[in-house]
Amino acid sequence: MLNKEESGENILHRAADGLPPRNLLTWLIGRPLPTADAPHQTIGKAVGMAVFASDALSSTAYATQEMMVILVFSATIAYGYVIPLSIAIVALLAIVILSYEQIVHAYPDGGGAYIVARDNLGEIPSQIAGAALLTDYILTAAVSISAGVAQIVSAFPVLFPHRVFLSVGLLFLILLINLRGVRESGQAVSFPSYFFVGVIGLTVIIGGYQYLTGSLGTVINPPPLETIHATQAITLLVILRAFSSGTAALTGIEAISNGVTAFKEPRGRNAGITLIWMGLILGSLFLGISFLGVHISAVPSAHETVISQIARTVYHDQNFLYLATIAGTTTILILATNTSFADFPRVSAILSKDGFLPRQLAFRGSRLVYSRGIVALAVIASLLIIILQASVTLLIPLYAIGVFLSFTLSQSGMAHRWFKSGKLAPGQEIREPGSILRHDSHWKIKLVINSIGAVATFCVMMVFAITKFIHGAYIVLIIIPMLVVFFSLIHRHYKQLANELSLDHYGEPFRIARHRVILPISGVHRGSLAALYYARSLTDDITAVHISVDPDETRKVQEKWDMWGDGARLVVLDSPYRLLLEPLIKYIFNVVDKRQPDEIITIVVPQFVPQHWYHNVLHMQTAFWLRLTLLFKRGIVVTDVPYQVD
Amino acid sequence: MLNKEESGENILHRAADGLPPRNLLTWLIGRPLPTADAPHQTIGKAVGMAVFASDALSSTAYATQEMMVILVFSATIAYGYVIPLSIAIVALLAIVILSYEQIVHAYPDGGGAYIVARDNLGEIPSQIAGAALLTDYILTAAVSISAGVAQIVSAFPVLFPHRVFLSVGLLFLILLINLRGVRESGQAVSFPSYFFVGVIGLTVIIGGYQYLTGSLGTVINPPPLETIHATQAITLLVILRAFSSGTAALTGIEAISNGVTAFKEPRGRNAGITLIWMGLILGSLFLGISFLGVHISAVPSAHETVISQIARTVYHDQNFLYLATIAGTTTILILATNTSFADFPRVSAILSKDGFLPRQLAFRGSRLVYSRGIVALAVIASLLIIILQASVTLLIPLYAIGVFLSFTLSQSGMAHRWFKSGKLAPGQEIREPGSILRHDSHWKIKLVINSIGAVATFCVMMVFAITKFIHGAYIVLIIIPMLVVFFSLIHRHYKQLANELSLDHYGEPFRIARHRVILPISGVHRGSLAALYYARSLTDDITAVHISVDPDETRKVQEKWDMWGDGARLVVLDSPYRLLLEPLIKYIFNVVDKRQPDEIITIVVPQFVPQHWYHNVLHMQTAFWLRLTLLFKRGIVVTDVPYQVD
Repeated sequence: MLNKEESGENILHRAADGLPPRNLLTWLIGRPLPTADAPHQTIGKAVGMAVFASDALSSTAYATQEMMVILVFSATIAYGYVIPLSIAIVALLAIVILSYEQIVHAYPDGGGAYIVARDNLGEIPSQIAGAALLTDYILTAAVSISAGVAQIVSAFPVLFPHRVFLSVGLLFLILLINLRGVRESGQAVSFPSYFFVGVIGLTVIIGGYQYLTGSLGTVINPPPLETIHATQAITLLVILRAFSSGTAALTGIEAISNGVTAFKEPRGRNAGITLIWMGLILGSLFLGISFLGVHISAVPSAHETVISQIARTVYHDQNFLYLATIAGTTTILILATNTSFADFPRVSAILSKDGFLPRQLAFRGSRLVYSRGIVALAVIASLLIIILQASVTLLIPLYAIGVFLSFTLSQSGMAHRWFKSGKLAPGQEIREPGSILRHDSHWKIKLVINSIGAVATFCVMMVFAITKFIHGAYIVLIIIPMLVVFFSLIHRHYKQLANELSLDHYGEPFRIARHRVILPISGVHRGSLAALYYARSLTDDITAVHISVDPDETRKVQEKWDMWGDGARLVVLDSPYRLLLEPLIKYIFNVVDKRQPDEIITIVVPQFVPQHWYHNVLHMQTAFWLRLTLLFKRGIVVTDVPYQVD
Repeated sequence: MLNKEESGENILHRAADGLPPRNLLTWLIGRPLPTADAPHQTIGKAVGMAVFASDALSSTAYATQEMMVILVFSATIAYGYVIPLSIAIVALLAIVILSYEQIVHAYPDGGGAYIVARDNLGEIPSQIAGAALLTDYILTAAVSISAGVAQIVSAFPVLFPHRVFLSVGLLFLILLINLRGVRESGQAVSFPSYFFVGVIGLTVIIGGYQYLTGSLGTVINPPPLETIHATQAITLLVILRAFSSGTAALTGIEAISNGVTAFKEPRGRNAGITLIWMGLILGSLFLGISFLGVHISAVPSAHETVISQIARTVYHDQNFLYLATIAGTTTILILATNTSFADFPRVSAILSKDGFLPRQLAFRGSRLVYSRGIVALAVIASLLIIILQASVTLLIPLYAIGVFLSFTLSQSGMAHRWFKSGKLAPGQEIREPGSILRHDSHWKIKLVINSIGAVATFCVMMVFAITKFIHGAYIVLIIIPMLVVFFSLIHRHYKQLANELSLDHYGEPFRIARHRVILPISGVHRGSLAALYYARSLTDDITAVHISVDPDETRKVQEKWDMWGDGARLVVLDSPYRLLLEPLIKYIFNVVDKRQPDEIITIVVPQFVPQHWYHNVLHMQTAFWLRLTLLFKRGIVVTDVPYQVD
């Protein structure tokens, strides 16, 4: 029978808000938010664009240049290929955007590559997608911060020796903004994102006007040409490599689909509209930059970015508008990191809820964000930045494989979904873990779109993996399978545990008939007597145990116990090798092994608690080690009776 | 009444040897030795010389050179002063040796500066002596290793970048040798110590013979003169500085007096004879080196040591005997470290027994040595070597102040002791903590000797402190008072604690009349039921507490508790901020504050124990944090009921 009431007390659902006091942490990240506020922590389309699109938009800052680098050879630039390839990439972008637009409608509770693969392709593909996404978010954070800091450092060479410190410091700032919560972080990034779109958009529009009126010049004093492909001919492979390098423009697109739940209702619709706007802006900026880059004869170089060359040609000088363009580009690169911070914790929380990552990652922190995931991302990305010394060159080859692997998996998943949808009768519904599957009358055309997308992104991924294999791509190809194995091991642990703890087939409860106490004492003092009196309240069967290292000390203990021991038995164990713990544990194990089935043995340990924690270094931590050792032995319960000293 | 017997069991002094199995540690440092073996772990005079004298002897390798460096100026060397100063130093050495010879007889249980100051000067001087000794042993270890490695590195410049690693590696080797125990470490160092005495002795004898027969040449191709005192005149200060630099030869003499207990019985006599032999050898070698150094016109230089110049002049070439001399010198420098390892642990154990350092330092390890002190020395010296990059130049100025400070204190103490002795009637005895004070008929002459020694060593210390103040001596003058304050704080803690725990004035024992159990549960499963049944064996007054973060989860817990809760009360605490620990602790504190005087509250925590320790990262460690928080609250006992999963 359940007693829900106790005399005079209302104990059911007693409010225990437990709001912690203001301290450094609440000052940094804000006061805790109650769970009931969760629905209010959502964002509209305009802020959503800033939060989830900064990664995708920032890639226009380098995609054209990356493509041009491949096409530079024999002291001439195969500029004829730049615009056709850009158009092809924008076509690919359109396919990917269309596909994701379908995903955000089909998966209003969040439909990243992981969920789509889980519902439509099975466990292993979904775990591969999860591993690819997590890897990619970490790399995005590291690459974007490093690239942004590299821009700052190019402008101010004096900061060069501090680039690692700067990168980690900025990462920490973004960490704090994100720990405050999604609405605040959206507000913080809104202005820079739109500022970037504004300045690059203005540059493209003015440049386009100049082209139409014939006043667009070519770049004055271009950086020196670094002819690294001097003897190479234009082959299909070169064109494919340029294409795959240019597809860096597509990185970050999937962010919105993972973050649908962060949008205001109706989520699917809002997220879909944001996605299409993002695709339009991204495509226009990318095409515009490629177009201007070709017509001003920009030279891709490590010394000056193509964006910088376009801006100073269009604005005729390094004037205010030029500086605004460079500042906007730098800022968006650093903020691209924010996309990782928005999505990495969400994906890891989903994986965690499915039992593939530690449970703690699914636990919302004081500001209703998945704080542990946010901190984990910051720590791993910081380590990566420190190990690779904030070098973009070393990070870039690791970067895009994960993106295209997750594109391929999510589009294959969607293709399979339309196929399943086509087999349903109109009106029929199947409830899947992440969404509801209905018949769709346009399933054939949608199947075709997603299949084309899947094949295209698969090809891009393969070209990427092959051409960048030796430059570091192999690391990702090792890490992703390792992560998948890791996920499986965690999953197995949680499943086994649930079985072990399950009350199904739980027989007759275990009744304790005899209770025996062992009381280890190093000396006879107020602390050990407090433990003795506590033990008396449990049972009369008490055995005090003293480990004898020094015979004089032992004699004193025996005499004092005669006087104060309240009649309890004292066992003295000789320890010829001056060990304290080992003889005691041996004795306890011996007693436990001889115990009766219905007998429980409690080790009552007098735990001396000093006034200040650091006083602990002045004492042998025998109680701590004893507890740690006995924890793994069946049939023993360890009770610490603390004795506080003032 | 004390029950010493239990039916069928002989429980008093049951043998519980608990000899641990062979493992990596026992392979490295040897099998544990029983306490009963302690008396056998002593050494004779010949091994004692090697163990305790390597530090003192090794200083002859640089003392002459250090003196010459000060006397080099105006492109000439004031060689006329070297031999008189050397004779003065040997006279000082004789006084110090005589004084220590008296100490080892008066203090057969070990009579370092700390004990002599404690028994004769009071608490503060003894703590200053203790601080000076500990500082000095750490510096000796760091300096000697660094100096030895510097010799190796001079011979093999390719090892220069690895000098820190080499130093720390050698330190680790000496650490292992010392952890094996005193006899083994004595045997290990015997050969190199006597080898050094042999090769330097041979060099001095052959050189002396050559001088007498007129065949001793001057050094060929001496290293270039580094005229750093170009414009300086010979003043009293310069001569004093040369004298104080030369007194580096005296460092290490006190080692034997600290280590008297390591000698075979009769300890005092054996240690005294060893001390006198050491003084004779040290004095002869030092005088011989100074004599030869002057007559071959050696040039003190960082590029070639004076020892090396003497050896290649005496042996006419860099032949086998030359190489043996250099190898012996290098080895003794490295082994001088061993003296620190022999004495630092002993001094810290004495301080620890007096309650001025953590108790753990007085605990003998498996090989009957003070392992914690040995490891502490190795760690601190390693840190010093790493921070100062194994630079002898940076370490040397810190080095000798501690030595002469402890000389001054121990000789002042002895002087005071003879004064007290003179006041006693013949045959009268006073038992002091470290020794027995008797009337001594020669107390006046002994008082004079010790007083002269005290004044002389005090002057040397002052000259050292003043002339080397800005080069680093100030650090030691800051550290020693800080250590004294540190000792006092530790001492106060132990004294307060002993008062708190004392059974004097301990009134009526506290009887527990009511026992109440609070059982925090996150869910209802086999683990929480095991804890419930255990709680049942303690009391009937059980309150299960569940923190509600998710209402669906809470409903499940309530339903399951209805079924399995065995009628125990369930309290559900709402946690709007998703905190687990804080509402629970608030509830517990509330219950505890309202408890009756004779009531005890036990928190029974279901502690889930995974199969492998690393599985813990997959679970919230709520039980651990709960226990840590509640430890400091009076009137609560925390019991972990482990539930092991296979």
